[in-house]
Amino acid sequence: MLILITYDVSTTSAEGKKRLQKVSKKCLDYGQRVQNSVFECILDSTQLRQIKYQLENIINKETDSLRFYNLGDKYKSKVEHIGARESYDSEGTLFL
Amino acid sequence: MLILITYDVSTTSAEGKKRLQKVSKKCLDYGQRVQNSVFECILDSTQLRQIKYQLENIINKETDSLRFYNLGDKYKSKVEHIGARESYDSEGTLFL
Repeated sequence: MLILITYDVSTTSAEGKKRLQKVSKKCLDYGQRVQNSVFECILDSTQLRQIKYQLENIINKETDSLRFYNLGDKYKSKVEHIGARESYDSEGTLFL
Repeated sequence: MLILITYDVSTTSAEGKKRLQKVSKKCLDYGQRVQNSVFECILDSTQLRQIKYQLENIINKETDSLRFYNLGDKYKSKVEHIGARESYDSEGTLFL
């Protein structure tokens, strides 16, 4: 299934900047960056549990947030992109 | 249906900062900010066409991007939030 992960990490402190780096690095282990704080990951339910657990342990729940959107298996018609394609896809091939 | 709108707007210039403000203001006309660059909007197909058209006319397609994700009508079980709830929902009630 396609899981969309979006996050806001408070970067007003040095710790926040480190958390932001860790969150994006962890997301890259599982999927594809499509915008600055938006990742698309093809995951099974075990991988989804893993990444949730790992990200929860990185963020500061008082100041940062994560959102997970489940687009299911038939996701291709559900996603539309307009405008610039960033070079975020250097780690893999875009599946759209 | 629930439409998730995410965007990256290049803010290296004053024009970019203005576009960013315009994009977020326009998204607020249609929905709810849930993270810094992530909006959730309950739209019919006419409204979806409208907001796409309006946002396309704001962004610079060379440097900015928009993504639209259609979560359908049965979206409540497809969305999960972890961590801080920002005060982004001041314009309306959160539907989750």
